Amino acid sequence: MKIVNISGNSTINIGLLGLGTVGTGTMQIINANRADIAAKTGSELRITKALVRDLHKQRPHLDPAVELTLDPDPILTDPDIDIVVDVMGGLEPAGQYITTALEQGKHVVTANKDLMALHGRRLFAVAQQHNRNIYYEASVGGGIPLIRPIKHCLVANKIKSIMGIINGTTNYILTQMTIAKKDFQDALAEAQAKGFAEQDPSNDLEGRDAAYKLAILAGLAFQSIVKVEDISIESISDVSVRDIMYAEELGFVIKLLAIGEENRDGLKLRVHPTLVPKEHPLASVHNEFNALFLVGDSVGELMFYGRGAGSLPTASAVVADIIEAVRNINHEIENHAIETNYAAKPVVPLSQSQSRFYVRLKAKDQPGVFGSVATVFGDAHVSLDMILQTRREVNLAEIVLVTHEVVEHDFYQALERIKKIDSIRNISNVIRVLERS
Amino acid sequence: MKIVNISGNSTINIGLLGLGTVGTGTMQIINANRADIAAKTGSELRITKALVRDLHKQRPHLDPAVELTLDPDPILTDPDIDIVVDVMGGLEPAGQYITTALEQGKHVVTANKDLMALHGRRLFAVAQQHNRNIYYEASVGGGIPLIRPIKHCLVANKIKSIMGIINGTTNYILTQMTIAKKDFQDALAEAQAKGFAEQDPSNDLEGRDAAYKLAILAGLAFQSIVKVEDISIESISDVSVRDIMYAEELGFVIKLLAIGEENRDGLKLRVHPTLVPKEHPLASVHNEFNALFLVGDSVGELMFYGRGAGSLPTASAVVADIIEAVRNINHEIENHAIETNYAAKPVVPLSQSQSRFYVRLKAKDQPGVFGSVATVFGDAHVSLDMILQTRREVNLAEIVLVTHEVVEHDFYQALERIKKIDSIRNISNVIRVLERS
Repeated sequence: MKIVNISGNSTINIGLLGLGTVGTGTMQIINANRADIAAKTGSELRITKALVRDLHKQRPHLDPAVELTLDPDPILTDPDIDIVVDVMGGLEPAGQYITTALEQGKHVVTANKDLMALHGRRLFAVAQQHNRNIYYEASVGGGIPLIRPIKHCLVANKIKSIMGIINGTTNYILTQMTIAKKDFQDALAEAQAKGFAEQDPSNDLEGRDAAYKLAILAGLAFQSIVKVEDISIESISDVSVRDIMYAEELGFVIKLLAIGEENRDGLKLRVHPTLVPKEHPLASVHNEFNALFLVGDSVGELMFYGRGAGSLPTASAVVADIIEAVRNINHEIENHAIETNYAAKPVVPLSQSQSRFYVRLKAKDQPGVFGSVATVFGDAHVSLDMILQTRREVNLAEIVLVTHEVVEHDFYQALERIKKIDSIRNISNVIRVLERS
Repeated sequence: MKIVNISGNSTINIGLLGLGTVGTGTMQIINANRADIAAKTGSELRITKALVRDLHKQRPHLDPAVELTLDPDPILTDPDIDIVVDVMGGLEPAGQYITTALEQGKHVVTANKDLMALHGRRLFAVAQQHNRNIYYEASVGGGIPLIRPIKHCLVANKIKSIMGIINGTTNYILTQMTIAKKDFQDALAEAQAKGFAEQDPSNDLEGRDAAYKLAILAGLAFQSIVKVEDISIESISDVSVRDIMYAEELGFVIKLLAIGEENRDGLKLRVHPTLVPKEHPLASVHNEFNALFLVGDSVGELMFYGRGAGSLPTASAVVADIIEAVRNINHEIENHAIETNYAAKPVVPLSQSQSRFYVRLKAKDQPGVFGSVATVFGDAHVSLDMILQTRREVNLAEIVLVTHEVVEHDFYQALERIKKIDSIRNISNVIRVLERS
């Protein structure tokens, strides 16, 4: 329903599902930019209702024109509401609310990463069926424009690879371990104290959060349906300051990368700690910042960098989506959910992929040890690029190796044989290495 | 005129003005992605005519369906052509051709930086008058999405500052001076040999190219009409390897930055060599790469990085614009040239701006020299942040200073007094310093 007011502008009514930090930020940005947005879109935005869990909570920034409700139905079924904004998070009931909103003819803007990663396909289908759109820029990368550039600016490119630092918690921890040589537990405690890590940080540390975001980005970039369970993940919790210092000596920094690549065999999708060459643009992404590096066949290398989380950055992306929705409503562009056209492309298992590896191991400090390791790798066609050997303790040497690219399966078979060499005390760590471009 | 063919797709006809590297790249990308573009837009793109200077030149990638012409009129007045693409460069006759195309009801896509920087305002007005659009993503930053993100993704932000490495030639030269310690002339010769610098490189070296691009970007970012002549520019040709090495010692790299800032007094617009803190994301932009760093009030810091020039990267941006034009044609979105609403904001002269400065000077190596320099700065309220003093030659010391922020006028007055101190041999160089954020 389009109402045109005395200034010639139409009014677009918005219902918010959730009024936490992102919801409040969204309200603040819309209120602060109301005239500007009206000038740009020809529409005045009004947040008319917001779903909350507590009607009596103190809300110092609350716009008094916003009606609070504990029940979603007055929002989802209100014929005057044009756009429903999901900033409540979680799979359910958010998924059901969005479905109902689309069925009721609302457009949907969502910051819900979990929902888009796990149920995006179903929601796109509902949206298409009802000729409505879902906008989800805020679900990945906070305020960094990622979805819209991939969809619109790189439309003339076949994207070959995407590599992202898309989890701020782990990047903060690894940065502090690198710069201040803090150990993992101290860096984690500091991240928690600063609000960059949750009390239960396992989703971040183990790479699940990054995998969800990779599923969303890789789906768009490779025009495929990417399932979270097809993404191999590896935690950062085994990375030690010792690894970081050896990496530095070899010209690398250690980052948790989410990587998607497409070749003729299919997609290669993984999240793992990675030795990144110091001169690579991703090596300079510090602390809580995020970045997505991608390679397109025409455009070459691109990187988008910024704040991947936080109330106002995420709300900035939500409001950009709302404004796109308003433009599409005003111009009666009813559906362009191109995501529903995607078919699932095959996924190459990590064991059949090629990687480079950093290996740190301890061995008895005696003649011939290094030769026996090198021989096992040589027999398995694993060729070595870099070698460091230092005495760690009395009679114990630490050997650090970086391999050239090798099929992962072959590498791990060789590693099993190396473990059995008598003079090898243990394999301290194995971390993948980003190929220099 | 909209023709719908048997597949249900409409056909959009395109005329190219120019068939050099970017024009040829545009043709290649459209041909390679024809089916994909049709699926995404519902339209088949056909380049029907191209304006060239030589009909008989060998063109190995020429699509035989493209009619070549020496005369622009068959393109500009062809009622079947929907979009005219300017990839010919130069102010005239390109400006006249674009004007005619708009008057004839064509939409225009242009990669023409000079024209948009100098005559953008006039062209936007013509476009608005005829209800047509001008798309100019390719005029700045090659394939890096900049115009569209600022216009659409950051629409909910007040942009506080933009800082760009937006000239590949100078960045290549400065990078080679930094990494390989090549002197300026050798680095320039190498850039010319690799095709990153023109035979007459003065437009790049002196900052004019970057100023044109800054005029376009600052106009959009600050919603103002920015005149190229309001931008202060300074060449990189006085930067020496010696400055680069001192900067390194102090924790900086030297980059040519194009900077636009808005505060309550107005806009501050300049292009000059700058000491950039090593940990700043712009410090890691090497060689021919470009990047734009910006700060928005909601989104915080953002950076866009990629290839700022080249046939296919630039053509990638041209094709993205063509596809946006097609979408707008198909949905009858006739004009959104929001640029015509901008008023010119006041520009703060550089002399009244605050800056930090790096100063390198030579003095007689005798007691009290440094004290006399420090006294003059102190009297002028210029406070010093960093000091290095080394013996350069017998009886001659080299002093390097970095000031805190100071009004430029006050700084240069103090510098004049320092020049007159008896024991000061000369001021070797003065370079601005980026404030650590």
